[in-house]
Amino acid sequence: MRRISLSLSPGDLADGILQGHLLVAIDVLRASTTICQALVAGATDILPVAEIEEAKQLAESLGRENTLLCGEREGRIIPGFDLGNSPLEYTPKRVKDKALVMCTTNGTALLARLRSGEEAVIAGFVNAGMVTRYLLRRKDDVAILCAGLLGQFCLEDAVCGGMLVAGLEQRRKVRLSDGAVAGKLLYKRFAKNLLAMLQASNHGFYLTSLGFGPDLEFASRTDACGVLPVFREGRIKI
Amino acid sequence: MRRISLSLSPGDLADGILQGHLLVAIDVLRASTTICQALVAGATDILPVAEIEEAKQLAESLGRENTLLCGEREGRIIPGFDLGNSPLEYTPKRVKDKALVMCTTNGTALLARLRSGEEAVIAGFVNAGMVTRYLLRRKDDVAILCAGLLGQFCLEDAVCGGMLVAGLEQRRKVRLSDGAVAGKLLYKRFAKNLLAMLQASNHGFYLTSLGFGPDLEFASRTDACGVLPVFREGRIKI
Repeated sequence: MRRISLSLSPGDLADGILQGHLLVAIDVLRASTTICQALVAGATDILPVAEIEEAKQLAESLGRENTLLCGEREGRIIPGFDLGNSPLEYTPKRVKDKALVMCTTNGTALLARLRSGEEAVIAGFVNAGMVTRYLLRRKDDVAILCAGLLGQFCLEDAVCGGMLVAGLEQRRKVRLSDGAVAGKLLYKRFAKNLLAMLQASNHGFYLTSLGFGPDLEFASRTDACGVLPVFREGRIKI
Repeated sequence: MRRISLSLSPGDLADGILQGHLLVAIDVLRASTTICQALVAGATDILPVAEIEEAKQLAESLGRENTLLCGEREGRIIPGFDLGNSPLEYTPKRVKDKALVMCTTNGTALLARLRSGEEAVIAGFVNAGMVTRYLLRRKDDVAILCAGLLGQFCLEDAVCGGMLVAGLEQRRKVRLSDGAVAGKLLYKRFAKNLLAMLQASNHGFYLTSLGFGPDLEFASRTDACGVLPVFREGRIKI
């Protein structure tokens, strides 16, 4: 039977457990959501990196005229960068036909840990339906990876992972890891009001205090962005 | 307001996050449960270690007449050891007035990561009421640590942690981490049938396949063991 595992924290990732799995990476607040919105708005490529200096060097090497430097630390735009990590900044006017070098605390740091040859689909609530349909078309075991918050569990990624688990389980016979069972139950608890869950979560509460409340509202819109971002060999494309 | 955090996976543990917290360590299947039962049965001390060779050397140095070597790998007794990790083996006849050197895959490995000066209370369903009353008497922030399974999330430790969170929240105003919120919700989902939850969990299913079904039944007995084991400076005592 097909296995579905959900790693609730980035610390759950051990070497080797990803091999032979379809990978899904989740960082609802906000990298997943922002990446989906950026691709909808016409960005050509997104290059996730873990460190600020690495981001600057990569943007220089690509040529700054068609490249934007994007990212945050502690939720705020990195000084000298073109864009922060709010999906609402990623309008066609700003990002169309641009490559984005993106450096965020949790989401792109997770992607940067994947090894050469590993690919991952990026998922948030905003594209959960697309991701579920993609997973239903394939037959491999699935490993869903939550980016978490500063290396720890965060509620919103677990709930989003649980939404994918619930969608798969509804249509196929699957065997769930303990993490997948937990995520599914948490999703069912919050399915009727994802925005309230985001607002009550530790990171959502913090982002709201910084004035990013509208980002939570955007992140809670199920299937608002009809894209399937795939991370492969260092870059994310549709 | 008093903070309650619940680390759902051992990978969530970062240096420094434990400082200034009352620590609670949970490994329902089976180290927590076995430690409680061993102390009820009259063991004087339990010395948790991470590695098998370390266990053998420690037992030799303590003198083998009053020391038992205890532990498991992949659920089974370690060859040459006196006892495995089934709570049902820990009868007064076997363990009364003995020191136990204990080496298990998840639970004692978690304790071995705590640093000198850090102390932790050991909790399972079998002593959850004692642990909750102890935490209610104190005022410090609380960090509850799940041992997990091979470095990953496991359902039963999260549910047990959630039982403690629910007990504290019922009596005091507390601020919960995302992990504590998730644990509490999982506990509420399974509170009425802990045994069925254990049987359906990944590790419970495996232990049942090895013939340890009765251990799950024992582990599910809320407050069966009225002890408060405390780990301090390398040893666990009441």
